[in-house]
Amino acid sequence: MYKSSLFLALTFVFFSCLQQQEKISSSTQLSKEEKIDSTKIKSLFNAALTQGESYEWLRDLTQTIGGRLSGSPEAAKAVVWGEQLMKSVGLDSVWLQPVMVPHWVRGEKEIAYYLNNGKQINVPICALGFSIATPKEGLSAEVIEVHSLEEAKALGEKMRGKIVFFNRPFDNTLINTFAAYGGCVGQRVQGAAVCGVYGAKGVIVRSMTNAIDDYPHTGTMSYGDLEPEQYIPTAAISSRAATILSADLKANPTLKFYFKQSCQTLPDAPSFNVVGQITGSETPENIMVVGGHLDSWDLGDGAHDDGTGIVQSLEVAALFKKNNFRLKNTLRVVFFMNEENGTRGAKKYAELAKLNQENHIGGLESDAGGHTPRGFSIDANLANTTLLQSWKKLLAPYGLHDLEQGGSGADISPLKAETVTLVGYRPDSQRYFDYHHTSIDTFDKVNKRELELGSASMASFLYLMDKYLYNNTPIKP
Amino acid sequence: MYKSSLFLALTFVFFSCLQQQEKISSSTQLSKEEKIDSTKIKSLFNAALTQGESYEWLRDLTQTIGGRLSGSPEAAKAVVWGEQLMKSVGLDSVWLQPVMVPHWVRGEKEIAYYLNNGKQINVPICALGFSIATPKEGLSAEVIEVHSLEEAKALGEKMRGKIVFFNRPFDNTLINTFAAYGGCVGQRVQGAAVCGVYGAKGVIVRSMTNAIDDYPHTGTMSYGDLEPEQYIPTAAISSRAATILSADLKANPTLKFYFKQSCQTLPDAPSFNVVGQITGSETPENIMVVGGHLDSWDLGDGAHDDGTGIVQSLEVAALFKKNNFRLKNTLRVVFFMNEENGTRGAKKYAELAKLNQENHIGGLESDAGGHTPRGFSIDANLANTTLLQSWKKLLAPYGLHDLEQGGSGADISPLKAETVTLVGYRPDSQRYFDYHHTSIDTFDKVNKRELELGSASMASFLYLMDKYLYNNTPIKP
Repeated sequence: MYKSSLFLALTFVFFSCLQQQEKISSSTQLSKEEKIDSTKIKSLFNAALTQGESYEWLRDLTQTIGGRLSGSPEAAKAVVWGEQLMKSVGLDSVWLQPVMVPHWVRGEKEIAYYLNNGKQINVPICALGFSIATPKEGLSAEVIEVHSLEEAKALGEKMRGKIVFFNRPFDNTLINTFAAYGGCVGQRVQGAAVCGVYGAKGVIVRSMTNAIDDYPHTGTMSYGDLEPEQYIPTAAISSRAATILSADLKANPTLKFYFKQSCQTLPDAPSFNVVGQITGSETPENIMVVGGHLDSWDLGDGAHDDGTGIVQSLEVAALFKKNNFRLKNTLRVVFFMNEENGTRGAKKYAELAKLNQENHIGGLESDAGGHTPRGFSIDANLANTTLLQSWKKLLAPYGLHDLEQGGSGADISPLKAETVTLVGYRPDSQRYFDYHHTSIDTFDKVNKRELELGSASMASFLYLMDKYLYNNTPIKP
Repeated sequence: MYKSSLFLALTFVFFSCLQQQEKISSSTQLSKEEKIDSTKIKSLFNAALTQGESYEWLRDLTQTIGGRLSGSPEAAKAVVWGEQLMKSVGLDSVWLQPVMVPHWVRGEKEIAYYLNNGKQINVPICALGFSIATPKEGLSAEVIEVHSLEEAKALGEKMRGKIVFFNRPFDNTLINTFAAYGGCVGQRVQGAAVCGVYGAKGVIVRSMTNAIDDYPHTGTMSYGDLEPEQYIPTAAISSRAATILSADLKANPTLKFYFKQSCQTLPDAPSFNVVGQITGSETPENIMVVGGHLDSWDLGDGAHDDGTGIVQSLEVAALFKKNNFRLKNTLRVVFFMNEENGTRGAKKYAELAKLNQENHIGGLESDAGGHTPRGFSIDANLANTTLLQSWKKLLAPYGLHDLEQGGSGADISPLKAETVTLVGYRPDSQRYFDYHHTSIDTFDKVNKRELELGSASMASFLYLMDKYLYNNTPIKP
């Protein structure tokens, strides 16, 4: 028995080595120039996986500062942290871009419950960003369940004095969970704007997640064109609570739901984008941006959203520095402020770029979590899209197979123009909405290797963009 | 500010929907027959993601029974659990295959420490499977650090009376972490066999992991051709402890390491493979196996290794049943016993297949964890390998891009023959060795969607194998 298990172990080793050999030999189908690129990319991955610092940066950001909603003391600390960190990496220059940001505060922990057959059912709940508070004593009303904005609108006056309960779940058959999010998030963003018109007393929304769990997922909402006196309190309830409430409403349609929240929107607060750059060696006037957002929701520590994007973006610059990659074009690392509720940082960055007549040739945003790499989403003209997709064979050995057309990200998309190539980093999305905007978006959910593979993927893509993009489409400021 | 955030949210929804549309439209490049396959595969994924039961099965196995090392009471319970579960799914027949298995027991929790500058450094340690115990009072000796079996052999008589410390870390630059494992596991399996020859007093091995952490990783070892009196106690120490010990040895080469373990190998014990099948509708004499292993190491709950493989294999059969897929060939689900330390179940299964003149045309094993799907590893003749690789365009929309030649798995590989097509399910490997053979291989490390996507991936591949494989290469018993 010992010998046979030894044999099996050795067989396994053999198979593993075989697989590895094959990957290397397949690279012989590359052209001479592609072999150079392949070697460069390998060196970036090797460096990220053996000398990467991003995991410890993320530990520090999430565990020392934690959640950092725009306008909060934590967001202010994160700005100082970001500036110091960028300087420590040895960028050529680091500066702050002042920007005024919304300042919404959650206040006391929210409370919600209802009575079902005499039993109090407590409901995990959280106010949505920009929602007003309930009256101090809370509010109570009967509940009408709907599954879309259209269904809500059709209710019209029937919703007056009621709480409207948006309960459309994620379509779990969609492989890309962001598509499932896209199919539901309208309820959260616009629910109150639709129901405020008809005098609903409040809106509660099923949390945006694939999972059935007990975490309320916060996120931004908007009162749209409502007059301030039409504003109504809005909150998310956990997906499990939504499922149970729906069942209880069928048995007891007149049950009264109670909730209480004390959130408020304070005057806009001063804050900053944190910006640093490595100046290009040949065409320093051409700028490529890499970034994520420094702010986060307040419930968790903003680990996957978007601590990972921040530390990966800076790791990209650090990898180029440490491995003596001299980019032709300027690489600018931006920690954007206020992506979650206003994207003021993104707008300010684009506004200043225009004002200063800066010439952006491309951008890469990481704001889809820090899970294992899958690819990039390309928002560019046809020629550049085709060019970027031609790099697939260089990227596939690293699990980067997805190079489809699509959006880039909320922070760099204001830079969009015919000649600007914008790219979104797309890691695996399966676990992302388990944590998104909740109290469990914490450091322990991030895997070191997955994070580092992401940094290396981004650096590799930017290396290729730097080398080939400008040559492909000469750009004038 | 409200309107602009509303706008951004809607832009996001739009981009997400756009991406989804593109995926669907790309399927128009398929032939008529491929479109049928594409629809069938989609229905399997839809069913797995909305009606999947495997996650709750896994919760039950890992949290009610837990770790289930061969010969243990827990392994016996797992057999009963597996048989009942297979029957509950409505397979055409379910039976047990008796097999005698090794029966190694860990005994009391191991202890290890050394003195460094008068300070006691405690070391997280665990005995390796099949190791003998130390003397009751433990053993203490000076330590010699090596990084390979060759380096150890070269020491020869210098190791007499010493503890040999194998400290080769994973090569973290290998993207496939199984390749890194393959490059190190020889130390664990053969270390004692090499060092017992020269009268070393014991062997300690750095844990098999990409991470620097405090968990000792157990696993099987072998005394090879040693005489029993040459056997020496062998244990794994955590990767962090190995790193620290290595540094301390540089400063203090004569420090004495102490460890104590009370493990022993008892007489072989009776156990079972659990087998069930759905009989084929056209060629029932042709058998395709799908399986994983029911036993696990004792330290954790055997969640990723290999609870996920077990429940995914049965979910495959359940998906076919519930969605009225009638396979031409017989699908046999096997919960193999004793993969971890002996593969007796695998050998018994192959032995009985030969004895009963069964005609296996293919097999699919899931024993690489339950993370997000990446593809399959193919062990088949050239014609069938080419055939299987031609299915890539049907599988790519589900993130299944890796269809390389390679091993299948320890449990089905004894079925290998020129006409048998063996396949290993290959999920993402980045996190796998964080948990492998440790106390933290527990249910909470498994994500429901990733697990279900795996079942659907496996079912899809078997659907294609059933439809095309036998037609491609007629097989006679």
